[in-house]
Amino acid sequence: MELSGPANQNLYIGLESCDKNNFEFLPFFELSESIRKRFESEDRSNDNESAIKTTIFDPSKIERDFNLSTDTWRAGDLTFTLLSPVSSIPDPLKTNSTELKHALVPSVFAEITIDNSGVSRSRKAVFGFQGNDLQSSMRRIDDTTGNRITGIGQGRHCAICTSDPDVLSGLAFTIEELLYQEHKENLLFGLGTTGALIMTVPPGKICTWKFAICFYKGGTVTAGMDTCYYYTRFFKDIEDVAEFSLRNFDYYRNKSIESNLMINKAGLSNERKFMIAHAVRSYYGNTQLMCRKDKPVWLVNEGEYRMINTFDLTVDHLYFELKMNPWTIKNTLDMYTERYSYYDSTHSRDNDNLYPGGIGFTHDIGVANTFSRPQFSVYELSNHTGCFSYMTQEQLTNWLLCGSVYFFETSDLTWLQKQRKTFEECFKSMLNRDHFDPSQRDGIMDFDSSRTGTGFEITTYDNIDRALGQARRNTYLAMKCWAAYICLQKIFLELQSSDLAQQAQNSASLCAHTIIGSVKDNGTIPAILENGNGSVTLSVVEGLIFVWLIDKDLVDTNGPYGKLISTLKKHCETVLESKLCVFNDCGWRLSSTSDNSWLSKIILCQFIINNILKIPVDYRADQAHLNWLLDPRNSYYAWSDQMTNGLVCASRYYPRGVTSILWLNE
Amino acid sequence: MELSGPANQNLYIGLESCDKNNFEFLPFFELSESIRKRFESEDRSNDNESAIKTTIFDPSKIERDFNLSTDTWRAGDLTFTLLSPVSSIPDPLKTNSTELKHALVPSVFAEITIDNSGVSRSRKAVFGFQGNDLQSSMRRIDDTTGNRITGIGQGRHCAICTSDPDVLSGLAFTIEELLYQEHKENLLFGLGTTGALIMTVPPGKICTWKFAICFYKGGTVTAGMDTCYYYTRFFKDIEDVAEFSLRNFDYYRNKSIESNLMINKAGLSNERKFMIAHAVRSYYGNTQLMCRKDKPVWLVNEGEYRMINTFDLTVDHLYFELKMNPWTIKNTLDMYTERYSYYDSTHSRDNDNLYPGGIGFTHDIGVANTFSRPQFSVYELSNHTGCFSYMTQEQLTNWLLCGSVYFFETSDLTWLQKQRKTFEECFKSMLNRDHFDPSQRDGIMDFDSSRTGTGFEITTYDNIDRALGQARRNTYLAMKCWAAYICLQKIFLELQSSDLAQQAQNSASLCAHTIIGSVKDNGTIPAILENGNGSVTLSVVEGLIFVWLIDKDLVDTNGPYGKLISTLKKHCETVLESKLCVFNDCGWRLSSTSDNSWLSKIILCQFIINNILKIPVDYRADQAHLNWLLDPRNSYYAWSDQMTNGLVCASRYYPRGVTSILWLNE
Repeated sequence: MELSGPANQNLYIGLESCDKNNFEFLPFFELSESIRKRFESEDRSNDNESAIKTTIFDPSKIERDFNLSTDTWRAGDLTFTLLSPVSSIPDPLKTNSTELKHALVPSVFAEITIDNSGVSRSRKAVFGFQGNDLQSSMRRIDDTTGNRITGIGQGRHCAICTSDPDVLSGLAFTIEELLYQEHKENLLFGLGTTGALIMTVPPGKICTWKFAICFYKGGTVTAGMDTCYYYTRFFKDIEDVAEFSLRNFDYYRNKSIESNLMINKAGLSNERKFMIAHAVRSYYGNTQLMCRKDKPVWLVNEGEYRMINTFDLTVDHLYFELKMNPWTIKNTLDMYTERYSYYDSTHSRDNDNLYPGGIGFTHDIGVANTFSRPQFSVYELSNHTGCFSYMTQEQLTNWLLCGSVYFFETSDLTWLQKQRKTFEECFKSMLNRDHFDPSQRDGIMDFDSSRTGTGFEITTYDNIDRALGQARRNTYLAMKCWAAYICLQKIFLELQSSDLAQQAQNSASLCAHTIIGSVKDNGTIPAILENGNGSVTLSVVEGLIFVWLIDKDLVDTNGPYGKLISTLKKHCETVLESKLCVFNDCGWRLSSTSDNSWLSKIILCQFIINNILKIPVDYRADQAHLNWLLDPRNSYYAWSDQMTNGLVCASRYYPRGVTSILWLNE
Repeated sequence: MELSGPANQNLYIGLESCDKNNFEFLPFFELSESIRKRFESEDRSNDNESAIKTTIFDPSKIERDFNLSTDTWRAGDLTFTLLSPVSSIPDPLKTNSTELKHALVPSVFAEITIDNSGVSRSRKAVFGFQGNDLQSSMRRIDDTTGNRITGIGQGRHCAICTSDPDVLSGLAFTIEELLYQEHKENLLFGLGTTGALIMTVPPGKICTWKFAICFYKGGTVTAGMDTCYYYTRFFKDIEDVAEFSLRNFDYYRNKSIESNLMINKAGLSNERKFMIAHAVRSYYGNTQLMCRKDKPVWLVNEGEYRMINTFDLTVDHLYFELKMNPWTIKNTLDMYTERYSYYDSTHSRDNDNLYPGGIGFTHDIGVANTFSRPQFSVYELSNHTGCFSYMTQEQLTNWLLCGSVYFFETSDLTWLQKQRKTFEECFKSMLNRDHFDPSQRDGIMDFDSSRTGTGFEITTYDNIDRALGQARRNTYLAMKCWAAYICLQKIFLELQSSDLAQQAQNSASLCAHTIIGSVKDNGTIPAILENGNGSVTLSVVEGLIFVWLIDKDLVDTNGPYGKLISTLKKHCETVLESKLCVFNDCGWRLSSTSDNSWLSKIILCQFIINNILKIPVDYRADQAHLNWLLDPRNSYYAWSDQMTNGLVCASRYYPRGVTSILWLNE
């Protein structure tokens, strides 16, 4: 919970072997020293030593079946399944509390099946963990539920529970002491730092047990702006979560199996099936639904960095949220409008003058449970030229693109009308960043925010390739501006502002014209349209998808922007065929001049190039990308984004892989 | 907060050197790697490198003035003082909220003075820390107080604040980046993992700044039984704590200086002055005042083990609480009576029969923010013979001794009358543990609690020496039983039960008789009165102090128990003179057969031997004990108790050193 990486916690899931002198476990723990010796200053280790061994199942004999919502491990006679249904969260402001409670329960579910059918004696199985919270102890949930529930947990925040009969809960210093505790009453050892549930399967039987793995954090948990977890409106503590979860176990089990189908019925390759499930799970691990003065606040943490609702991630999560929880897009945009927008001036690099600017949005709204002060992100610094500079133009397009796509997908006219002024202010701001003098506009950003001070604006890609970091005359960003202008045109038509619509269309045309005019002899579009920049990127196509979502005709080679589309198509064909943007393993390289490539963006560009530009893509790329994720040096961090030659270099434990949800549209 | 040891956290308290290219710090941090590289996948380390050095003040030039409530560090032109007033907490049920709020404010205070009088340029000073909480970010308190307060903190739980003008608060990845940030606005870097306040002293001036170091944890924080911090009734968040603390800074400053006098005016040796201040500070670090359904719950954590209100510590904290917060004794005893008492049977070691038992009390009431289930401690296990076995007889005497001393010191008759039945039940239970057959009683425990199963009861000293661990016929415990019988006699007289008083007196006499009869030819009393046990202890005298507190005549060599007192005196003279219970460095050894000696108990025994038995003690012992505490291998853990040949072996970060409060009675 609320961590920037895996919990690094020992989990014990194991089964007594047939010869009774061994316990075999799934490989989810490391050996650790017993805390016992801190209590016993004399060496008494021999007293408590058992003749029993604990070992790991032979890894070559462990089978795993990994799906979107179920994850099954089979080893010997043990089958362990985690159930974590992927389902929509209905809009909290429009949903009755029963439905919401079901959707928000802070728990995942598990089943253990032991096949003892060929064995003539009873065997024990175990499911537990070693606590790693510094402030609270391990405890038995039996004690606080009048023994209605059997469970072990730590503090008030996590617990593994069951209501199945004949399961014992226990605490001990080590899993070995717990398993071989001769005296049942001593399982209730409050000092134990390891807790586990112990099941016994009779001779010749097959048994299955059901568990709820519950989480809870009460009270106000964020700073900067006070919010609590939304689920605390429905559950008063972890015991409450456990009772509800176990009572509804079958509901969640069925829901999990059902939600697997979302991916399994889509006819995807095995590579893609794995990658999308892995990405969605990592996304879930980054989300928090908070409550502020009775209103929902949707938060997505930025992986290991834990920045909140980073706007250049929000725009990439758009496809996932459109499918799953469209109301969260509105929720996030409104927060940006209300608390995280600002007005700036602009400057050119030619002189020290300040020129008109306009509305802008911050890069993020906070970090690690702290909301940033109004109008400022935690990330952006003045007088910088690289990482940590401002992203005003980029986030301005992100607001427009998210807002427009949200409206056209949901037809939420009430929202659009409420945001009319924001759209208009955004348009004005867009134009000023192209040029304050209408006659000198070319549809492309030339003016940096005054907030950058002596520095200049960067883009989300600042980190991939220093040469591409700048926002000014960046063709990736220009294509997003082109898309934003088209969105504005459509939005203004919807709002019956035909003058503004016409002006927006003009800017889109100017932008298209400039990009077409930038093409080099070999058919490629430079990454930056100044100083003879020699890089090329795949990311230049990103803007296309927003227009495609709204009006597919506009991204057709025979449509009104046919020339632009053909130019982009030629660009992509060239950089792919020439391997400028392909690694040796067939994985994709976003920028010709960087070994750092971002998987979420690769997936996005791959989708666009394949489905919008109609270029057949080499599916060996998927195998390469899967291999990146599965490399043991990477896989520890769940889904990660930034890979240098296939090795994670940054953005671990990241949510952005959900661009892969687009595969369901193929 | 709520840790079992030091926070392991980097604290930055430093001053710019006169040559401007260096900052010198107090030695409260370790070098750590900047988190910056996680954001910048390319190596850009050169870009941000400053030519500035940070160094530690030459340790030989740092002076420290360590008192009960003020702790001052002087190095060069920097003076840093921590102010943490030691004062009584008035009984929450009898005190108005203004007074309580003042007493419970969860903050400590600090002052920094920079003497720049001989320097012709301005210099910067800094006070900050690096966050180490995994779940929440660093932040500026300015943001959430409308800039009324300048502060930096982490999450909702800690902050360093000032309301002095012209102090800047800032965040950065490292203290160096923070100190040499050229652009003031970039001090507001929300991703910074290090936060600090920056002060500037003008040329030729001496400046002092005032700080409040604030803590806060809201909501329900304990499991097993729900409680919140009592201070949350008065403060709604850490900002609230900061405002109050800074507004009342002078009050707390004066209170700190005033409370130093409690020790400084007592005419103690320097060794004792240091040890008592160190012990009281460690005690404070272990306490929590909680609130349960509007009622106070006083908790003392057991150092690194964090067991709550461990009863064999409570009895040693008695002298401290009698002086500071007598109501906490009642508070703790009532919790034991209501939730943590039980009834058992007993067994002898001769056969498998069960015999009458009676009321008992658990060893503790929980661990690390979890209250144990009713009637059970977290520590005690059945079928054990050493550490973790039951301590029924020991805790029974502890309840009686604490309760009796509490009554006679406070004359709280309402409480006594409410607990009449408990005293009577305790007496019955005491008698049964001696022998169910009155004719076979000798005043000493022979029957173990049936809760021990196949094991037997231990004492608090189980850990010091295996031979002394057993409760049965243990003379240390027998002397506590003797004291308990005398207390019962006095209590029953107070309750006008003269029959019971007479019976209690009989048991005291029987016990005295048995002990006197056990003396060996060399004048020593064996530690255990069976199997020819050859150990001797100093702890055998402990029981005397409770009787001394109630009626000094009873512990006089000319009093009614004169023979017993003389016997104990002879015992002590012998084991001290013969060096049986003295280490080579003149430190005291509690048991002749163990190198493990407990400082808190040494201090207690030293007091008794010197003041009750009137044996002059060798004050070189104090120097030895101080050296134990100051050994760098030990001093890291604040005050620790269990020392093997002067090296900490267990019970680190411990509260029990407050037995030293007894020195104030010398």
